[in-house]
Amino acid sequence: MFKKILIIGCGLIGSSILQAIHSKKISKKIFVLEKSKKNISKIKKIKSNCKFIKNINNEVSDVDLVILCTPMSQYEKIIKKLNKILKSGCLITDVGSTKQNIIKLKNKILNKKLNWISSHPIAGSEVSGPEHGNKNLFSKKWCVILKEKKQSSKKINLIIKFWKKIGSKIVLMNSINHDKIFSITSHLPHLIAYNLIKTAQDSQKIQRKKLIQYSAGGLRDFSRIAASNEIMWRDIFFNNDNIIKAINLFTKNLNSFKKIIQNKNNKKLISRLSNSKKVRTQIVQLKQDIAKPDFGRE
Amino acid sequence: MFKKILIIGCGLIGSSILQAIHSKKISKKIFVLEKSKKNISKIKKIKSNCKFIKNINNEVSDVDLVILCTPMSQYEKIIKKLNKILKSGCLITDVGSTKQNIIKLKNKILNKKLNWISSHPIAGSEVSGPEHGNKNLFSKKWCVILKEKKQSSKKINLIIKFWKKIGSKIVLMNSINHDKIFSITSHLPHLIAYNLIKTAQDSQKIQRKKLIQYSAGGLRDFSRIAASNEIMWRDIFFNNDNIIKAINLFTKNLNSFKKIIQNKNNKKLISRLSNSKKVRTQIVQLKQDIAKPDFGRE
Repeated sequence: MFKKILIIGCGLIGSSILQAIHSKKISKKIFVLEKSKKNISKIKKIKSNCKFIKNINNEVSDVDLVILCTPMSQYEKIIKKLNKILKSGCLITDVGSTKQNIIKLKNKILNKKLNWISSHPIAGSEVSGPEHGNKNLFSKKWCVILKEKKQSSKKINLIIKFWKKIGSKIVLMNSINHDKIFSITSHLPHLIAYNLIKTAQDSQKIQRKKLIQYSAGGLRDFSRIAASNEIMWRDIFFNNDNIIKAINLFTKNLNSFKKIIQNKNNKKLISRLSNSKKVRTQIVQLKQDIAKPDFGRE
Repeated sequence: MFKKILIIGCGLIGSSILQAIHSKKISKKIFVLEKSKKNISKIKKIKSNCKFIKNINNEVSDVDLVILCTPMSQYEKIIKKLNKILKSGCLITDVGSTKQNIIKLKNKILNKKLNWISSHPIAGSEVSGPEHGNKNLFSKKWCVILKEKKQSSKKINLIIKFWKKIGSKIVLMNSINHDKIFSITSHLPHLIAYNLIKTAQDSQKIQRKKLIQYSAGGLRDFSRIAASNEIMWRDIFFNNDNIIKAINLFTKNLNSFKKIIQNKNNKKLISRLSNSKKVRTQIVQLKQDIAKPDFGRE
């Protein structure tokens, strides 16, 4: 499918892509640019046949595909280097979680001889690092391909083919819709989880009681996504303006929830709780989660 | 250990207790009072050798132990019946999730010849109904025993022995501390999960986009506990006054989180996110959750 692929940044997502490419024989040659020595030694333990490079240099000037898997805050610096080295026609994609910012940036600074089609695989974990990577991470998961005006349909088809090959289900979106949708299904839930954990930490101090040891009653669920990588999530929170709107809607709903409780409004409360219940069934039917109670935890 | 036990209300928790009692041979005879015909036919499929009764009548006047597993809003009606039927010295416990209200109620209306020691097993699931019950539900889970003045230490030891026998780890607390602690580790997380799901439903309407199908990026985790039983949770939200304080602290933290994002305060944001991360490790070390990434979901 490709002769040479370059993966820049090889944490959880980069390592999973690397392993998937190797396993599906998608490219004859895979280069990996990874700065962390710790990560490099971890990747060496993974079957992948990749070649490590230290900088974007002439050795990778003729790659067919570049996949950016670093935190988004590094993109600008990297694009400037790619501009200098890559040959005309090279396809670039990235796996960043917010899209309006990325597309604005690349429209501004990417050399016009290069093609960038942005991707967002909806896959990840609370753990980071290449050792947690998994060739099946993208299997049956959505991958959003960002649709823009004046894109080469040949290149779009190529990137779709790539993600399909490593198991993803494809959906095309523009960046505005992407950022709106994921502000609700991903960015707000993470922010709320972080906020709940902070509230529990504060309460532990205020109450002077060790409460976290009793977290099996609900809190533990939130602690999982509140353990996500802080650099990645800082970049997301700073780059999706829709998050503020989402917080405001959440707060409005929380205030009305509080009033319902204070007024002991039985009818309204039962209707709220029953309505929420339906969403779980939808999520399971849409194959966004497993059907087993309690996530199948033992 | 007991000659006769009566379980009142046989949903998820009642059925799990029933199966645990049967499996551990804790009582020679088990009576079950369950009003729902649907539930009765489901319980009949479970190995338990229990006898169904339709009302609290003379047949159960000499039970040693009564376990209340109905929604808390039914306790008053039930206590009044127990007062009339039960013989002196009988031990009663319950599994309700808020305790100040229960203890206040029983102090007010329970016949003084009866002994009530309240329990709270920290175990449950988003699914309800006896068919989801499991004899190991309490295994290695905390069970809070409510400590009050003037309790018979013999009876306390008996109830501790009972919960230990079915696998629980015991902790003694007074009702004030109990309600404070679980307002943070259980009641607030449930309320927040319900509120997040409502916010996603509202956003779906406002944006006119089907967003729930992309919920694998975080939202799905919250949908699980937001699918919990609405009667049980109405009773909890209406009966733990600490929940309002907890909401207020959560809102204060959410407002400051919003400001940090709006001001792009890098240092403060990274410190918040990194701090939250530590809690996951604690929770896993405290055996409140499994260590596998993503709850071991496949």
